Amino acid sequence: MDGRVAEEVRHFLTDFLERRRRDCADMDAEFTETVVDRLTRFTLDGGKRLRPLFAWWGWRAAGGADQGPAAGAMLRAAAALELIQTCALVHDDVMDGSALRRGNPAVHVLFGAVHRDGGWFGDPERYGTALAMLTGDLSLAWADDMLEEAGLSPAARTRARGPWRAMRTEMMAGQFLDIHGQARRDDSEITALRADRLKTAAYSVERPLQFGAVIAGAGEGVVAALRGYGEDIGIAFQLRDDLLGVFGAPEATGKPVGDDLREGKRTLLLAIGMRRARERGDAAALAELSAAVGDPGLTGADIETTRALLDRLGARQEVEERIRRLAEQGQQRLKQAPISEAAVRALRRLAVRATERDR
Amino acid sequence: MDGRVAEEVRHFLTDFLERRRRDCADMDAEFTETVVDRLTRFTLDGGKRLRPLFAWWGWRAAGGADQGPAAGAMLRAAAALELIQTCALVHDDVMDGSALRRGNPAVHVLFGAVHRDGGWFGDPERYGTALAMLTGDLSLAWADDMLEEAGLSPAARTRARGPWRAMRTEMMAGQFLDIHGQARRDDSEITALRADRLKTAAYSVERPLQFGAVIAGAGEGVVAALRGYGEDIGIAFQLRDDLLGVFGAPEATGKPVGDDLREGKRTLLLAIGMRRARERGDAAALAELSAAVGDPGLTGADIETTRALLDRLGARQEVEERIRRLAEQGQQRLKQAPISEAAVRALRRLAVRATERDR
Repeated sequence: MDGRVAEEVRHFLTDFLERRRRDCADMDAEFTETVVDRLTRFTLDGGKRLRPLFAWWGWRAAGGADQGPAAGAMLRAAAALELIQTCALVHDDVMDGSALRRGNPAVHVLFGAVHRDGGWFGDPERYGTALAMLTGDLSLAWADDMLEEAGLSPAARTRARGPWRAMRTEMMAGQFLDIHGQARRDDSEITALRADRLKTAAYSVERPLQFGAVIAGAGEGVVAALRGYGEDIGIAFQLRDDLLGVFGAPEATGKPVGDDLREGKRTLLLAIGMRRARERGDAAALAELSAAVGDPGLTGADIETTRALLDRLGARQEVEERIRRLAEQGQQRLKQAPISEAAVRALRRLAVRATERDR
Repeated sequence: MDGRVAEEVRHFLTDFLERRRRDCADMDAEFTETVVDRLTRFTLDGGKRLRPLFAWWGWRAAGGADQGPAAGAMLRAAAALELIQTCALVHDDVMDGSALRRGNPAVHVLFGAVHRDGGWFGDPERYGTALAMLTGDLSLAWADDMLEEAGLSPAARTRARGPWRAMRTEMMAGQFLDIHGQARRDDSEITALRADRLKTAAYSVERPLQFGAVIAGAGEGVVAALRGYGEDIGIAFQLRDDLLGVFGAPEATGKPVGDDLREGKRTLLLAIGMRRARERGDAAALAELSAAVGDPGLTGADIETTRALLDRLGARQEVEERIRRLAEQGQQRLKQAPISEAAVRALRRLAVRATERDR
């Protein structure tokens, strides 16, 4: 399976969602065609499958088999991570007021448009928000169902619950810190790093690795090495996201240029920019950065100015340098544990994918 | 435990939430004091504990013990239903735009007020919505964790997953039908009944009963009798809600008079009123009802007029009559199965509580 994790994950998601669709169609056709089909399309169209990949390689690093029923159960459990992620993305887009996701209208926008086009009663935006909330809620509940039905052995299931429990709470805590940091205009590096640790490092990398490893029955040394690697790579992953949010090409990211700035995201990139402006006593740069963040009316030219400013302050370079250091340090950690050469190589490739991507 | 189910449920919720609070406090203090504490207060202050009560009496009806470790595990599993309910209520209030819950500001309103009072950055309403979304999401994830940690035997756990899986999806499908029915101004009795069946009958009564019964290892006959009773009582329960939403005393319901009308809820009460107006060819009454539903500007006098109209059309009486018939029919069903006299008596009392309440 090593080379086909993303395909297998998609296959198991398709299978699970088709079975659920049949159950739901017996219950209510309108719900099925509206909410269930939207959830399904969103999940199957989705992304890089990074969380299942990290879970798979946590499993393989801990000696889990590449083939056979246990490997199949592991992949089904890993696929359930994608249903948590559907909830996270659909709900985050509502909370952040993001209109686009992967280059397409966000789920709440799609539902709002159906209401508007139909000339239905009430406020299209409220309807869109409500249906996106339900889509995410359903996906979160189904994530648990899918884990439950994955076919793990009772002992593996019990071990899996620890990281499973932690990662859902950490994802929500990280999202809280994002939202709350925006509201408080908190520009400290410490707060940005707290959110990055929870939302990206723990939820997206460290916990999926631990999840796969404990399902395989890994010892403490292997789990500790994987989690150390996961934390470093996870933060580097988020820092890459910060850079793409400001400097990325919209045709690659599927998001308008400067969306993070308009939405007022308090990223570590920005906190570093502010700190560097303060260190230089550059009050004008500080004021300019402050004014740009969270201004929904930013034009392309404004964003160009902010980009140039983050460049000139050296913030972009500092973040690039941190990514490089974290990626290197993360890989070092793998050497301290009895992990097969093949798994180390695969985790190195995943680290590159997570931290050197352009989308 | 028979006489102290609500107290025991509160005790187990307190215990679970205190342990979670400690874990979260180690992770992030601000998240804990904001989201976790709000979730905890909302859940502990909550309601009638009807869902755990139905689960408990499903267990007892199927021969589950009143005391001992298995009874304790059952109560913990039943308490987890209250965490699903916290998600349902907190999210429903956002979706419906309800400002009040149990006589207090709804969770999204409370969070919005903190933002406004603090003079924080951005839109207080969006912040309130985001934090209420996170509170509900967390509660839904924790419901699964609490079921997992309830201490059920592996076989009982596996049996419990069937109704557990069904009830979460049915709750969301029912809420979808509510929202969608409002948007489509669907005034058919069939649609109203579909929503009632899913959201109240299945989610609130039938599935909790089944959940308790299968945990006890009930045979098919007992489960079928309980589910039949549950469906009848559940619909009667919702019809009582419909009546309270229009005719209830606000000091008892904790909701402003006529809130259901202002929000545009497509209740069975309303559908019956419309049908009776049509049957009489009373176009004026039909137009008046249509105009009243979903008009956020309804005054006290408008609501008085609508009440009088539903009275005059005989809709109120028809609904009262249906509640009576359903409650009676539900109780009859219990007689067809080998259920202890004590459980039948308790279920009769619960049916009365659910269908003859004033709040």
